[in-house]
Amino acid sequence: MTPTLDHVLVAIADPTRRAILGRLSRGPARITDIAAPFEMSLAAVSKHVRMLERGGLVRRARQGREHMLTLDARPLRRVVEWTSRYERFWNDRLDHLEAFFTQKGQVK
Amino acid sequence: MTPTLDHVLVAIADPTRRAILGRLSRGPARITDIAAPFEMSLAAVSKHVRMLERGGLVRRARQGREHMLTLDARPLRRVVEWTSRYERFWNDRLDHLEAFFTQKGQVK
Repeated sequence: MTPTLDHVLVAIADPTRRAILGRLSRGPARITDIAAPFEMSLAAVSKHVRMLERGGLVRRARQGREHMLTLDARPLRRVVEWTSRYERFWNDRLDHLEAFFTQKGQVK
Repeated sequence: MTPTLDHVLVAIADPTRRAILGRLSRGPARITDIAAPFEMSLAAVSKHVRMLERGGLVRRARQGREHMLTLDARPLRRVVEWTSRYERFWNDRLDHLEAFFTQKGQVK
């Protein structure tokens, strides 16, 4: 099942989950390896990993009693595609935005 | 206050909020204008707008009794910066990933 953009974004919206992706960017790892640097229970880490799997960013392969986790960064491409639509707004529209708020004089 | 990357990502992780940003990319709008195409109460739309404000993506200026909303896409640049670290993984690591899973033969 292809993860929705919502699931991808929810998956990366948490600093622990982004740190797990950082760890997996250095190579496949067991869930116990991943849990080690975090002061969290294995259950809590597993829950984060499930959110990452739902976002399609982590793949899990069973090796006997162990689970090996691997990064799959491809869903992030969709995040880049979505954000790139707004690229022109942080380039040439800043003046426009500033002009609008200076005119109103009431930035909240 | 600078929005955290978490707040930016949570803000864009919802399709209604992404649609609101799409509307604002066509120009500033009142909250009632924004609510019109959605079959939602003004209160529900306001809640979404507050999440977008927390992510720094929407700015609000009071004009008498009205609130004018304006897009501020700059926080999305940080999303692009974060995702760009993973760009090489969706380019040259696909073969590596595939090899890993083919070898294990147990994709879950």
